[in-house]
Amino acid sequence: MRIGLIGGGNIGKFLLQSINMNGLLPDGKIVGLYSRNQQSAEQLAREFDTENYLDIQSLIESAAIDLVIEAANIQVVKDYAATILKSGKDLVVSSVGALADGDFYQQLEKICQEARSKIYLPAGAIGGLDILKAAKSIGELESVSIITRKPPQALPGAPVDREQVMFEGTAKEAIELFPKNINVSIILSLAGLGPYKTGVKIISDPAVRKNSHLIEAAGSFGALSLQVENDPMPNNPKTSYLAALSVLSVLKNKDAVVKVG
Amino acid sequence: MRIGLIGGGNIGKFLLQSINMNGLLPDGKIVGLYSRNQQSAEQLAREFDTENYLDIQSLIESAAIDLVIEAANIQVVKDYAATILKSGKDLVVSSVGALADGDFYQQLEKICQEARSKIYLPAGAIGGLDILKAAKSIGELESVSIITRKPPQALPGAPVDREQVMFEGTAKEAIELFPKNINVSIILSLAGLGPYKTGVKIISDPAVRKNSHLIEAAGSFGALSLQVENDPMPNNPKTSYLAALSVLSVLKNKDAVVKVG
Repeated sequence: MRIGLIGGGNIGKFLLQSINMNGLLPDGKIVGLYSRNQQSAEQLAREFDTENYLDIQSLIESAAIDLVIEAANIQVVKDYAATILKSGKDLVVSSVGALADGDFYQQLEKICQEARSKIYLPAGAIGGLDILKAAKSIGELESVSIITRKPPQALPGAPVDREQVMFEGTAKEAIELFPKNINVSIILSLAGLGPYKTGVKIISDPAVRKNSHLIEAAGSFGALSLQVENDPMPNNPKTSYLAALSVLSVLKNKDAVVKVG
Repeated sequence: MRIGLIGGGNIGKFLLQSINMNGLLPDGKIVGLYSRNQQSAEQLAREFDTENYLDIQSLIESAAIDLVIEAANIQVVKDYAATILKSGKDLVVSSVGALADGDFYQQLEKICQEARSKIYLPAGAIGGLDILKAAKSIGELESVSIITRKPPQALPGAPVDREQVMFEGTAKEAIELFPKNINVSIILSLAGLGPYKTGVKIISDPAVRKNSHLIEAAGSFGALSLQVENDPMPNNPKTSYLAALSVLSVLKNKDAVVKVG
């Protein structure tokens, strides 16, 4: 698997380190990198033995690349996903918030069907999506909700002396009004009941030091209650480590001959 | 996707109904069925418009079949998995306990690599495997355990008047000493830390009416606590509905162009 990476930030660096330095993807290598920050890109390319593309277009058009990882931002997905997928390359999207727009989602899905390419959406900072997908496979998933709890420092405007519900509504509303939480709201909606039927609550809690998510779901399968506490990435308190790990995990499982779960 | 189904029991019937009757797999059909119970197989084949194979060998050798689902028992996997995979067909294994034997697992893995076939292992009655797989993708998953709680009626020899721990040990021991729980122990081990490092506890609890599983895990990603309560299949109190749903989910996600999670 010859990978092109868009983005030289925390997740990008983590992938370069895991794949090109630590060899965690036996049959894969990041062969090309594009980052807006050209100085940093040049340094990363040297450090991790990959090619530094000076413009994004030449990376996504390169015949030397089979799969592109977006580890940049929503705009990159909006601007380039269609071109990447049309060329038959697979795409791993880390800014899954880009797919909040249902029309855009369907447009990409159609391109994939025609070009025989695929989009991979990592679970990000949450999980248990396997149960939600199974539960909805016969259309009998009845309810899905998530309560996200963060320290006040992570929520602009939150009081530091007491717990406060900062947002409560549907995932659809959360996506519009609380874009900081967009990835979690979107991936949970896509795995489960869609943005209009997924409940989201965001709580500022001075008693916690880490982000946590409580997912509850019910249906004919039974009931699920999943609590995940996110440790931050080493050297980067703002990104949940699990979000980065889930991108690597998608790549590892993509070509595994034994698919677990 | 032209599917061959081995097994006409509860999961087999559920799949025939979901796929051949309710059309839940847009591009798939169960085109062939083998069941030991020939009388029942004949009836199922007629009811669900599929071919009734009189012997298992002709089903697995059929050029009209791309993928085989085992919904029978461990012995079928042991006897036929290698032949199925060698012929280039993919295999969905519902009796994942067959892969408890590490040598057998590696043998099948090697066959898959050579024949370019794949094995799919549904999550069964549990989930959250997405988080475990992500956490272990860099080798920093530290602990995984499961506490299974069942009503005493489901556990031979259990007292009906008080809670009792029926088993406590590693998944390796659980697989040997408590085969009724083998699927859960195995899939959890495969997703996480392997059978020697996965803790298993089985509790008989007169206060509960349904099986439930509490999975706890920790590592550099943070911490996970997942509780799932299993409702039984409609018309079949002995099988968790989620176990059947997870097989259908594997098939639905296998060829999806947008992979969620």
